Amino acid sequence: MTGAVGFGVFSEGDGPPRVGFRAGDGVLDLAGAGLGSHFAVPSLNPFLALGPAAWEDVLGRIDDLVQKGTPFVPLGRTSQRLPFEIADYIDFYSSLEHATNLGRLFRPDNEPLLPNWRHLPVAYHGRAGTVVVSGTPLVRPCGQIRDPYEPPHHGPTRRLDIELEIGFVVGVPSRLGEPVPAGAFRDHVFGVVLVNDWSARDIQAWEYQPLGPFLGKSFATSISAWVTPLALLENRFVAGPEQDPEPLPYLRTSGEWALDVELEVEVAGTVVSRTNARGLYWSMPQQLAHATTNGASIRTGDLLASGTISGAEPKSQGSLIELTWNGTRQLRLGDGSSRSFLEDGDEVVLRGRAGDVELGEVRGTILPARC
Amino acid sequence: MTGAVGFGVFSEGDGPPRVGFRAGDGVLDLAGAGLGSHFAVPSLNPFLALGPAAWEDVLGRIDDLVQKGTPFVPLGRTSQRLPFEIADYIDFYSSLEHATNLGRLFRPDNEPLLPNWRHLPVAYHGRAGTVVVSGTPLVRPCGQIRDPYEPPHHGPTRRLDIELEIGFVVGVPSRLGEPVPAGAFRDHVFGVVLVNDWSARDIQAWEYQPLGPFLGKSFATSISAWVTPLALLENRFVAGPEQDPEPLPYLRTSGEWALDVELEVEVAGTVVSRTNARGLYWSMPQQLAHATTNGASIRTGDLLASGTISGAEPKSQGSLIELTWNGTRQLRLGDGSSRSFLEDGDEVVLRGRAGDVELGEVRGTILPARC
Repeated sequence: MTGAVGFGVFSEGDGPPRVGFRAGDGVLDLAGAGLGSHFAVPSLNPFLALGPAAWEDVLGRIDDLVQKGTPFVPLGRTSQRLPFEIADYIDFYSSLEHATNLGRLFRPDNEPLLPNWRHLPVAYHGRAGTVVVSGTPLVRPCGQIRDPYEPPHHGPTRRLDIELEIGFVVGVPSRLGEPVPAGAFRDHVFGVVLVNDWSARDIQAWEYQPLGPFLGKSFATSISAWVTPLALLENRFVAGPEQDPEPLPYLRTSGEWALDVELEVEVAGTVVSRTNARGLYWSMPQQLAHATTNGASIRTGDLLASGTISGAEPKSQGSLIELTWNGTRQLRLGDGSSRSFLEDGDEVVLRGRAGDVELGEVRGTILPARC
Repeated sequence: MTGAVGFGVFSEGDGPPRVGFRAGDGVLDLAGAGLGSHFAVPSLNPFLALGPAAWEDVLGRIDDLVQKGTPFVPLGRTSQRLPFEIADYIDFYSSLEHATNLGRLFRPDNEPLLPNWRHLPVAYHGRAGTVVVSGTPLVRPCGQIRDPYEPPHHGPTRRLDIELEIGFVVGVPSRLGEPVPAGAFRDHVFGVVLVNDWSARDIQAWEYQPLGPFLGKSFATSISAWVTPLALLENRFVAGPEQDPEPLPYLRTSGEWALDVELEVEVAGTVVSRTNARGLYWSMPQQLAHATTNGASIRTGDLLASGTISGAEPKSQGSLIELTWNGTRQLRLGDGSSRSFLEDGDEVVLRGRAGDVELGEVRGTILPARC
């Protein structure tokens, strides 16, 4: 089988949007297959809210339908929508290598890793309303930029970047005031998507202190059209990096929680980076436990992304700012051209594979600025 | 007339929730008054999405119903819900006095105001899913805290604070990739609420670099039960502070855009601060233009809050960290007790008045931590 596996929302031709299950080159129409009224609306949210027993039951019934030879809609005849309504979007910063690289680039005169980084999974809230599905074109954003020795001006970003991430999707909500312990991760989380957290580095550099990234990120975040259930990734959880110092008790986990997913970034037809999500320092259960330890509730449709996934080896970084060291080293592409940051017309594709299971790719093409 | 004026969602006794219009001590049941199918669900969102002509029409029809003597439900027989579903929540940092005070407290060895502050309205995204309605109790949050010369520990915040803010509510959405110019503010924005952006200063201080506030804020944000339409505040727009340097063209406005609203903060029965929103450096149309200048779309139910409103005079600051100078000066209360930060059992009330029009108060009581 080739092609992604997961749940999403698709249309066949000009038809109405429906919930479907993609396996390779086909999509099973779950609304039409009589698998329950939670598939009646064109969004995964009602299904996500049902919880692990219902998720397992539906996967079993999909298996039965496949055995019986139920026809799949050819993928090529479909288009995709955002698979679920994003409730809140949290973006972590969980790669040691990425945080170290960005520290070196943004704060060259200081220790690259801030004192809190090894004690807690640093994160911030992103803009849920501008999360878009793979395939959505990206208008080059405009904003305030300050060049060295110049007053700030307003114009198109000249440092448009990507961030290769993996995100998990909350199904079962929690109550305000009640933390979700790391051990309850599987009771709440349905599955994962790939995430491209597009970033305008020049806008970000000028705006981000002291309250963090805002317009440098909020113009768009792209996710896979297909949400891959954790249940199909169970044999891909492996031991993660050693954590030193030992985390505080609320961040301790038992079992293995790093996700062995091979990842690649393609820019304008050339693969420019290959890495693996298993290298992330902070795990998904730790991220969820941290995000709720103050009593913050989670909702169906919450998206919690890893932050940029970078390895230690050359060409294993998940952003152009790292791969080109803030534009000081050009990336050579297969067509003979070179890049520091993205150019208009560039298509970016993120891909992920966990053994036999491919995640939904994340694709997007840059359109010219409109300012 | 005394008491707030605005639109909200209420129940009478154990009855079902309904959209209502509060004027003083009574609530008009808009669902029952036959004012349109957009009042059929217990949320303002469908009505907010209709736009200025429909908002004006409904206000006119409410006037007619009042003239005809249509009975109001006594406020004392009602309870309130969150008036609208929060889409995204943005929190600005638009008071010069507050940003200067916080800079002095958090970065004592540097210039208090960062270089970007006078060029753009600094902001970050908060957690939409934990915005709660006035009256919701607040469980004291727990989190990671690092005391000087100690390793970090996990425990209840000892520096629980408030932030007095005013927020505006988006009615009419925009499209991704299309900025909303400052001049289109009234085409999109329905009205305002008071906001208490509860803050745990010790959690915030340890976590907030480099990506901004997260768990120090995300446990809860309280808003008024009643959204006061801009249409009822038109005679309260006055000239704001002079802006130097002159803002870039996309941040320039014509007309007067500071909102003359008298504000007060009550803690455990004592008014500890009085100020006015007209002193905010950045105006609401500037905030909206900035938040969308990169093409980020807005949605019905977006909440954009001012950031803490502080004046230059003594006892005119909108947070305890400022009023007590990070706990180094005690606040004396009317009952003879004193406070640096909030204690369990304390009730906080924010109030706002714009001439004859009172905004919905924001009330919350601190419950003990559960960790």
